[in-house]
Amino acid sequence: MDNAQVIHLDVIKKNLDINVLEKIIEEGFVSYSEGRVITPPVGELVFEDPPGDTHIKYGYIKNDTHFVIKIASGFYENVKYNLPSGSGLMLVFSQKTGFLENILLDEGYLTNVRTALAGKIAAKYLAPSKIDKIGVFGTGEMAKMQVTYLEDLVDCKDILVWGRSETSLMKYKSIMSENGYNVDITQNQEDIAKNCNLIIMTTPSKEPLLQSIDKNKGIHITAIGSDTHDKQELNTSIFKDADIVATDSLEQCKHRGEIPHAVRDKFLDYKTIIELGAIIKTGNKYRKNEDQITIADLTGMAVQDIQIAKAVCQTLKI
Amino acid sequence: MDNAQVIHLDVIKKNLDINVLEKIIEEGFVSYSEGRVITPPVGELVFEDPPGDTHIKYGYIKNDTHFVIKIASGFYENVKYNLPSGSGLMLVFSQKTGFLENILLDEGYLTNVRTALAGKIAAKYLAPSKIDKIGVFGTGEMAKMQVTYLEDLVDCKDILVWGRSETSLMKYKSIMSENGYNVDITQNQEDIAKNCNLIIMTTPSKEPLLQSIDKNKGIHITAIGSDTHDKQELNTSIFKDADIVATDSLEQCKHRGEIPHAVRDKFLDYKTIIELGAIIKTGNKYRKNEDQITIADLTGMAVQDIQIAKAVCQTLKI
Repeated sequence: MDNAQVIHLDVIKKNLDINVLEKIIEEGFVSYSEGRVITPPVGELVFEDPPGDTHIKYGYIKNDTHFVIKIASGFYENVKYNLPSGSGLMLVFSQKTGFLENILLDEGYLTNVRTALAGKIAAKYLAPSKIDKIGVFGTGEMAKMQVTYLEDLVDCKDILVWGRSETSLMKYKSIMSENGYNVDITQNQEDIAKNCNLIIMTTPSKEPLLQSIDKNKGIHITAIGSDTHDKQELNTSIFKDADIVATDSLEQCKHRGEIPHAVRDKFLDYKTIIELGAIIKTGNKYRKNEDQITIADLTGMAVQDIQIAKAVCQTLKI
Repeated sequence: MDNAQVIHLDVIKKNLDINVLEKIIEEGFVSYSEGRVITPPVGELVFEDPPGDTHIKYGYIKNDTHFVIKIASGFYENVKYNLPSGSGLMLVFSQKTGFLENILLDEGYLTNVRTALAGKIAAKYLAPSKIDKIGVFGTGEMAKMQVTYLEDLVDCKDILVWGRSETSLMKYKSIMSENGYNVDITQNQEDIAKNCNLIIMTTPSKEPLLQSIDKNKGIHITAIGSDTHDKQELNTSIFKDADIVATDSLEQCKHRGEIPHAVRDKFLDYKTIIELGAIIKTGNKYRKNEDQITIADLTGMAVQDIQIAKAVCQTLKI
């Protein structure tokens, strides 16, 4: 307890092995779908002056080595002081003694990594084999990571990105071009529906952004922007044409993400939804052919935090 | 965030000023009773193999400088490996930015201190002026701290202690004798009722230990052992003769501590209970005379953790 090690962000970044992590996150999804993960309700503190919120996510896999408590905050007026709005840390405890072993001062970075990896895993099992163009809604960190994490899975280097701000779009184009992508920008949402067969939703929008899709071609959508009951990026009618709808958590998707909206509007039946963990467990591509329409609605789970935090500590051999 | 300071137990102990803390904890109780404290439900993880539990208590005082998340664990098989069963830490965050500022690796010590101080504060406002003998149920750390923290409040140095184990009683007697107390031991619960007019309950018992009191003399009871709905140290009929029943939290005492049992058995009406914060706010001794019977049922609140954690950081001028 007294020997708990503090690991700073630079050390965490230096020691991340994305390929190892992918496998570990997949194992987490499978554990979850097998009912071996205990995750109590998320704790929340909401502040008014200045406005901010703090979430506490925690849990463990039964009969595992460790348990993890993650604390993540967003204080949006921090930008006034040239400080990042988001911050966060993960605490790793022994499941044998209850003692704190590691404090990962990751500043929210590991949450981004595990979220990007979830998108990659969804695409691995669900996306068409041949991607013509990657469509991205949003220009933030996740809009970049979701694409770059697909690097060794998807050959396509062509991106069409939608955003509200031209400045942000130009900045996204500039950064992703440096990373070897051919980036077109658009402020017309339909352009993405028409031209892309892998579409990634990364915004905190409360109004649908993608209104429809081209039903005549195979397409995969990963929706990770909505993680609450009031955020929504997809017009619910899109679900009516989906051949496969996957979620990270059948329990969580009752209240969070795109799925509750689609069920409410009767374009989707809960019974037809499959958990990502169940898909991974098959060990095979879940899409049957290139023509299917697939949607993965991911709201993020504590088991991803548990797995990535454990993996970082393991890599550092602490 | 990246500069979060880790404070170890030895440094915490060296820098504690109990007199300053007492005032700060009192302010916390007042803030709570004035409705200025936000404390969401306690988070809980329960483990089976080995058995253990972890609690996450958190909250903040509105318009204050910081917020605090406390994590406390009990893994009872640790003794097999010569390790303490309890462990814990407190995280102190800025309420302005959400950034983590301090990690107090207090191993549960600050929880003991704030609990002992709550007992002292209760006694200050409620106990008779002249204490004949201090009665203590239990022989653990809290049975010692509750008494020693009364040092500059209560002249009496005579203790009568009850415990199940003669070994533990002898150990208690030995340690408290070294601290300048005259300690008698007993395994007869009635001895305490007969001889003591300040009685402190510190056990995790699930069956009442103190069955009755001498109604003909002024007496004060501080009950801190029961902090759940199933623990109980006082026979509920004792409440029938109480002139004043105080609690740290009117909300919490609906479900935890001695009070719910007494209300269920119709020996106590919720409406007559007063919060410690409301008593402190009066600024005066709340007991009217030496003959009254008073009970303080304390189950522990996050605001005590918030106040003590802030105070430690302030003292260390971090």
